[in-house]
Amino acid sequence: MVLKGAEIALVRFPQVRFLLFGDELRINPLLEKLPRVRAASTVMHAEDVITGDAKPAAALRAGRRSSMRLAIDAVAEGKADCIVSAGNTGALMVMAKMVLKTMPGIERPAIAQFLPTMRGETVLLDLGANVECDAENLVQFALMGDAFARAVLGLVKPTIGLLNVGSEEMKGNDAVREAALRLKEGIPGITYHGFVEGNDIAAGTVDVIVTDGFSGNIALKAMEGVVKLFSNFTRSAFKSSLLAQIGYLFARPALNKMRDQLDPRRYNGAMLLGLNGIVVKSHGGSDAVGFANAIGVAVDLQVNGFLDQIREELAVLRGPLAPPQTATV
Amino acid sequence: MVLKGAEIALVRFPQVRFLLFGDELRINPLLEKLPRVRAASTVMHAEDVITGDAKPAAALRAGRRSSMRLAIDAVAEGKADCIVSAGNTGALMVMAKMVLKTMPGIERPAIAQFLPTMRGETVLLDLGANVECDAENLVQFALMGDAFARAVLGLVKPTIGLLNVGSEEMKGNDAVREAALRLKEGIPGITYHGFVEGNDIAAGTVDVIVTDGFSGNIALKAMEGVVKLFSNFTRSAFKSSLLAQIGYLFARPALNKMRDQLDPRRYNGAMLLGLNGIVVKSHGGSDAVGFANAIGVAVDLQVNGFLDQIREELAVLRGPLAPPQTATV
Repeated sequence: MVLKGAEIALVRFPQVRFLLFGDELRINPLLEKLPRVRAASTVMHAEDVITGDAKPAAALRAGRRSSMRLAIDAVAEGKADCIVSAGNTGALMVMAKMVLKTMPGIERPAIAQFLPTMRGETVLLDLGANVECDAENLVQFALMGDAFARAVLGLVKPTIGLLNVGSEEMKGNDAVREAALRLKEGIPGITYHGFVEGNDIAAGTVDVIVTDGFSGNIALKAMEGVVKLFSNFTRSAFKSSLLAQIGYLFARPALNKMRDQLDPRRYNGAMLLGLNGIVVKSHGGSDAVGFANAIGVAVDLQVNGFLDQIREELAVLRGPLAPPQTATV
Repeated sequence: MVLKGAEIALVRFPQVRFLLFGDELRINPLLEKLPRVRAASTVMHAEDVITGDAKPAAALRAGRRSSMRLAIDAVAEGKADCIVSAGNTGALMVMAKMVLKTMPGIERPAIAQFLPTMRGETVLLDLGANVECDAENLVQFALMGDAFARAVLGLVKPTIGLLNVGSEEMKGNDAVREAALRLKEGIPGITYHGFVEGNDIAAGTVDVIVTDGFSGNIALKAMEGVVKLFSNFTRSAFKSSLLAQIGYLFARPALNKMRDQLDPRRYNGAMLLGLNGIVVKSHGGSDAVGFANAIGVAVDLQVNGFLDQIREELAVLRGPLAPPQTATV
């Protein structure tokens, strides 16, 4: 899946070169059938592997010779620009944080992803890196989401919303209310829209939606669940009668176009934001097309200078990002 | 909408009688056209109305003569069995809590609703009454959700899941982890399944999903947003070409059946659980069919003895629901 994904990515990005971390005895025979990938790659042998069910702390201790760790080390040492992995998310986060460190001004990294909406695409973060967040974390997520939307979606002035249970000022918990006050006071370069609600994600009301990792993870997966429910119900509906089957034949091209628009593989590639390096996580269950898109996200971030952009924004912000001198609530 | 909904509800529940709270000068002329509803109703004149944008605290102070408050009073005084309202949710919650009081053993009421899933229907709570919850609140929600699933969905032994960002024991915040420990120790009559994730809502993995009001509200609205996105995309797809239009004609009966299955009006009627009275909230934007279903939820709760059921469960639980004597974490 990874190697076939690399082949697909090479069509769009012929300039990309790969360091392939893993068991060379398994990788080399596969490369025989993919001469294009072979020509663009160097195999970096790694005997150990972090399994999908490994505890992050255990991976950190015992995984020093794992393919995942060696790939992260390569980014830290400047041998690679980005890492793309379809492995254990928790282990990737913990190891990347330890090796690459968070950027100055960022307390905690966040996981971000863009999603299809009624009006294009929207970035949602955090998707589960931080279960509990304070206002300071949310403000930093807003800034990271802004930089991500500029680099990956190519937006010039992304609008930022804070996910809440209502749009009125008094709604929500202390963290979102305080973050809203901070964002309203104005942060240079950030276009703050205000509170948004769950339905605003798919509506595409804003370009970036900021929330804590608990709500963000639940919202993302709840939405994925509905997409699956809809697909299953639609499939059953079209199979339910001969007339419906005939109808499907006629409508197929239009329906396939819609399916492509909503194809989760198009939106594959979540980024671990806030680290001194580009770390992209492909969904574990994705296929080659999805993995190629995750590579695409990494390339976009690299080519569009995401890390420099966010460092600049952070430098401008160094003042406001420090704990406020006087209580603002 | 309310009166037409009452008429539809009377077809399914001819035994129901209505007290209609509102401006008699506006209600009476409408009843002229709905003789069946008129025969089953008594108009209770109320001059004041709680507007949709009224602050709950202001409604509590100034709304003593409002239709909403008088309807709640009628339940408190035993003149009515249930209240069904399509008005301001926050005001309804605050006034109902003040007038009807929470049941002994329940600290905070919760809002619950059932939703369509791959395997039937699932109850989700809390949907926004409590932005911040501790383990004790979540355990009480589990118990209330259990009683709700028995009364409204007719389930004999509902399974209960705690919404989290992963299924492993160490995942989540303190509240869900401690609630999981309490539910695992065993609560008489409750079938605890374990942690579930966002996608388990639409998958129907369990019959009742318990979460705090912040995540629950966001998850529900995020899912509603995807349903809307899908409907819009499907409509555009079928309009996009002549072939697709022909296909739609053939597939229409099957597609309409699917639409009916997922029709939000079927799932209209959120209940405010944990009060000494049955309080059902119809979606503000619903139509007569939706409002009739909200009336149906109230009737089901009343006929199936929901309040007695939950009182019994609470009595059994009085021990475990008291603050634990020894720390369990």
